[in-house]
Amino acid sequence: MQKYFANGKELRTACRHGDWSGPTPGQANGYVQANLVMIPRQLAFEFMLFCQRNPKPCPLIEVTEAGDPCPANVAADADLRSDLPAYRIYQQGVLVAEPTNLKAYWREDLVSFLIGCSFTFENALIQAQLPVRHLEQGSNVPMYKTNIPCRPAGPFRGPMVVSMRPMTPAQALSATVICSRFPLSHGIPIHLGDPQVIGINDLSRPDYGDPVEIRPNEIPVFWACGVTPQAIVVDSRPEFVITHKPGHMFITDLHDQI
Amino acid sequence: MQKYFANGKELRTACRHGDWSGPTPGQANGYVQANLVMIPRQLAFEFMLFCQRNPKPCPLIEVTEAGDPCPANVAADADLRSDLPAYRIYQQGVLVAEPTNLKAYWREDLVSFLIGCSFTFENALIQAQLPVRHLEQGSNVPMYKTNIPCRPAGPFRGPMVVSMRPMTPAQALSATVICSRFPLSHGIPIHLGDPQVIGINDLSRPDYGDPVEIRPNEIPVFWACGVTPQAIVVDSRPEFVITHKPGHMFITDLHDQI
Repeated sequence: MQKYFANGKELRTACRHGDWSGPTPGQANGYVQANLVMIPRQLAFEFMLFCQRNPKPCPLIEVTEAGDPCPANVAADADLRSDLPAYRIYQQGVLVAEPTNLKAYWREDLVSFLIGCSFTFENALIQAQLPVRHLEQGSNVPMYKTNIPCRPAGPFRGPMVVSMRPMTPAQALSATVICSRFPLSHGIPIHLGDPQVIGINDLSRPDYGDPVEIRPNEIPVFWACGVTPQAIVVDSRPEFVITHKPGHMFITDLHDQI
Repeated sequence: MQKYFANGKELRTACRHGDWSGPTPGQANGYVQANLVMIPRQLAFEFMLFCQRNPKPCPLIEVTEAGDPCPANVAADADLRSDLPAYRIYQQGVLVAEPTNLKAYWREDLVSFLIGCSFTFENALIQAQLPVRHLEQGSNVPMYKTNIPCRPAGPFRGPMVVSMRPMTPAQALSATVICSRFPLSHGIPIHLGDPQVIGINDLSRPDYGDPVEIRPNEIPVFWACGVTPQAIVVDSRPEFVITHKPGHMFITDLHDQI
C-alpha cells in the first residue's frame, strides 16, 4: 500500500531513517520538490553556468557552498546526504551505484544544486481537474531524452530531457496557463503532439521512469525536466557526480506557488 | 546637447570608437540594459552563487566563460572590453581607475556577468505616462546603499543598493504592475515611502548617480539595483574586479519585454 507524507519534513525524516525509498509524485502536496546534482567545486562554476544557460530544464532553487550538505534557505534542518529516497553515483559519466544515502560517497568538495521539478505543479493540475496519468496509475512519470540540444557551458553539453503527461488538447491549454505560475518548476510545456518532432520515437519506452497509458482523445504534452543534468553527465563524463534517482526527489519546506 | 542612440548596436559602436562615454538612461529605448561585473575565474562560482541568492538586485541575463569577452546570447558582435561607455576598476575593494575601455586591464581569467538594469523598464513607464524624473532632468538615476543585508556567498557580503524614482502613490501602484512584467530587470519595487526604514538618511545625497527633485505630492519608490555588487566589492575586498561605471550600462540586442 502506498504511503503518503503530509509535508517535506515528514518525508525527509522517513528517508533519513531508512523508512522510505520510493518515488515522490503525489507526496507532500503543496511543497516544492527538487532535483539534486552534487558536483565537485572544481566544476561548480561551469555547471552553474550550464543551469543559467538552460533555465527551462535547470531552474535553480538553491545552491550550497562546497562541503555544506544543508540547503538552509529551503529546508533549514535538512541533510542532503540522507534526506532523499534514493541517489545515483556517476563516475566518468557511468552510473556505478544507486544508494539510499551518501555515507560512503560524500566528499567535502561537493557543491549541491537543487533544481525545480514538475511534480511541484501536479497538485495544482489536480485541483483544476486535469489528469495526471502517472498519479492515477501509481507510477513514476515517464521521461525521455530529446534531440533538443542544451546550450553548452564548459564541459557540459548534451540533450534536454522532458517529462510527459497525456491530456486532451483543451486540457493541455488549461495546464499551460496553470504552469505559467510555476517558472521555477519548469513552467509551461516545451512541446505537445508529435513526439518525433523532438526526437522521441517510442513513448512506450521512456529513458527514465515508467510508461503511462495515452487514451485515443489525448496527445502527449512535454515539459523540460530536471533529469537533464543526468543525460549531460553521461555525455560529458565529469570525474564524479551525485544526483537523485529520477523521480525520487528532495522535498523542500517551500510552499508550491514560487 | 544630449545624443540619443536608436539601439544597442549603435551605442556599443560609439563606445567602441571612443565617441560616447555618457550615462545610458533613455538610450536605445526598447532594448535590455545590463550591469557588468568581471570577476577572476577563481571566485566566479562564489559570485554566481551570490547572484543566485540575491535575485532581486542581481538577476543574471548572461554569463560568459573565463576569457571570453563576447556575451554571445545577448549581443553576438559585442566586445565587453570596449562597448560600454565607462568602467570601474577595483583592487582589494578600492576603486583605482575609471577608464573608458579595458585595454590596460583585461585578463584571460575574467568571467563576465551581465545583470539586469532598471533602465530597461523606464520606456514602459513613460509609455504609461508615469514620471521618470531623472530622464526629465537629463541626469543619472539616484542610487543609495541601504541597511538591507544581502544573503552572503563565499567572501561576498554587504548591503543591497537601490535606485529611486519619485511618484505619487497611485503612480507607484501602476508602476508596480508594469514592472512585474520585467523580472530580469529587478521587477517590482522593494520599498516605497519612508527612506529611513531601509537605512537611507538623506535622499539629496545619493551614493551613486545624481539627486532628483521630489515634489510635494510624491513619495520615493525604491527598486533593487544592479550596482549592489559594487557595494559588495567594497565590503568584501576581492583581489580584482571590473564593473561598469554606475549608470553607464551595457546595452544588449534583447528586446525589453524579457
